Amino acid sequence: MMKDHFHRELEEYQRSVEKYSIFALNMLRDSFDAFRSLDREQACEIAGGMESHCISPGTSDGQPEMHQQIMVPRKVFLGLRSDQLEEEGLMLIGLNQPVARDLRTISCCMNLITSSERIGRYGKDICHCTYKLPEGIHIQDMVGLAEMAALSISMLEDAITAFRRHDLDMIRDFSERDDVIDQMRYSIYEDCIGIMEEDPVTIPYCATYLLIDRYLERCADHACKTAEKIHYMVTGERVDIR
Amino acid sequence: MMKDHFHRELEEYQRSVEKYSIFALNMLRDSFDAFRSLDREQACEIAGGMESHCISPGTSDGQPEMHQQIMVPRKVFLGLRSDQLEEEGLMLIGLNQPVARDLRTISCCMNLITSSERIGRYGKDICHCTYKLPEGIHIQDMVGLAEMAALSISMLEDAITAFRRHDLDMIRDFSERDDVIDQMRYSIYEDCIGIMEEDPVTIPYCATYLLIDRYLERCADHACKTAEKIHYMVTGERVDIR
Repeated sequence: MMKDHFHRELEEYQRSVEKYSIFALNMLRDSFDAFRSLDREQACEIAGGMESHCISPGTSDGQPEMHQQIMVPRKVFLGLRSDQLEEEGLMLIGLNQPVARDLRTISCCMNLITSSERIGRYGKDICHCTYKLPEGIHIQDMVGLAEMAALSISMLEDAITAFRRHDLDMIRDFSERDDVIDQMRYSIYEDCIGIMEEDPVTIPYCATYLLIDRYLERCADHACKTAEKIHYMVTGERVDIR
Repeated sequence: MMKDHFHRELEEYQRSVEKYSIFALNMLRDSFDAFRSLDREQACEIAGGMESHCISPGTSDGQPEMHQQIMVPRKVFLGLRSDQLEEEGLMLIGLNQPVARDLRTISCCMNLITSSERIGRYGKDICHCTYKLPEGIHIQDMVGLAEMAALSISMLEDAITAFRRHDLDMIRDFSERDDVIDQMRYSIYEDCIGIMEEDPVTIPYCATYLLIDRYLERCADHACKTAEKIHYMVTGERVDIR
């Protein structure tokens, strides 16, 4: 009976963590869209804009859970919610003494929280890059950054789906996909150096591309790290994806 | 009696985590030294070189602890040890159901493990930057990167000391120090753009400086995040340092 209650709580916790990871992924995706269209207003909106979020102070002493709908910027919600979910995970462990797969599940959740916070913050950083460039259009069609963003984002999406379904098939080819990301990163780096050397006018653009190149590679790396943890959650065995 | 045993274990765990964080910090420091002297051999040694590390398979069923002294590259140890310490932390919670300060202590440890792994990996990334540049000397005295590295490293050192001593005085001025880091980052960024625009020969150097500029800012950010967790561990109250 106690056990059942814990498993219901654990499932709810996983859903909360999944929701948080989707929130963070959307922050990255929207930020990249703002960057792609060099839309400073949209970038401001994402980095500092107010959105309505449900901040729950949690339950205590059997009180009914209170949900407060308050306006906070996305980046504030990103940090607050991460602290909250981390604490909930530790409480779940402390109160229920899970072992084996249940313990690995909570551990996987806590890793996903940490990675998701970083991914949201990369979104914010991409917004800051957007302010730095003049409004108008990009040069050289962003030297392949859009493809790299699409691939990184699809890895993050698949990692989240694998987490929800406990489905290792979604993440089986992550090593190969990460290799493609690494090649993209290297080739964008080389392209940027060449373009800057040819025409100094391009320098502010390419300097920004070099940074975003790195951010997207890091996001794919977080997807791989998550995949490793999902594999461990499901099988109890550690794999090395990167 | 049981309680005492747990607290001894917890203290030992904190020492292990501290030791790991010093290991990672040294990896960053040595990498930056290799970069500063453009010493590729040293950079290779750090990124992939073999070192002797003590890999402990842990105790089970009252068996005496076995320590195996094996040769592994620093970057491999960095990842293995992080997984191991993370698991130990979760086991400590699961087996002992700590509350209040004890639970916050383990939570702080787990954050320090995650940050330390990242810091070690930034070291590895700095080594990779070292291979990319021609052997010889830097341009423009590395536009202030050495000062920025010194400041970031001192923040990490102080965070580790604060963690060991539970001493908030060491981290009280972290907001100001982080502001200095942010100014440094911005000014190095601007300097690099200007230098590249003036002389395209400098582009490969400055492109690398731009990346390391970012890595060092991230390291200081990890120091701030650690400081926030230490504050929470000691007082039970959350502060926002960044």
